Amino acid sequence: MNIRIHVSLKPGVLDPQGRAVHHALDGLGFAGVEDVRIGRLIELTVADSTSDADLEAMCEKLLANTVIENYRIEKVGQ
Amino acid sequence: MNIRIHVSLKPGVLDPQGRAVHHALDGLGFAGVEDVRIGRLIELTVADSTSDADLEAMCEKLLANTVIENYRIEKVGQ
Repeated sequence: MNIRIHVSLKPGVLDPQGRAVHHALDGLGFAGVEDVRIGRLIELTVADSTSDADLEAMCEKLLANTVIENYRIEKVGQ
Repeated sequence: MNIRIHVSLKPGVLDPQGRAVHHALDGLGFAGVEDVRIGRLIELTVADSTSDADLEAMCEKLLANTVIENYRIEKVGQ
């Protein structure tokens, strides 16, 4: 089973990496970019027996820093 | 207009970060994890006038290293 976990900073949390990319895009002449936020995309291949609770626990314990990050679990192809 | 760009390593490219996460998940007792790949999730807020060609150019020039990475452009909410 293929799982995609989208991890992104919570609104209001400063994103220096996003700022740097935004600055670079401006420097390359791309007008019209209003905001840039950088997050993580984690692609897992897991056994079909893996439960939703297991996936949540993986996110809560390791894959996301829930103090400053949100995560969204997507089952690919379902 | 909100855009999500999914950047992930091309198949066959070694992913040490993914290996480390995989190892940590095993250590936390999560059985059944077969593979872990880590990528980037870039969330852009751009003017509605931004064309698909502009978005492609942003990816090709800055947001993705097309030698080892693939990217996928997703228009959020469309």
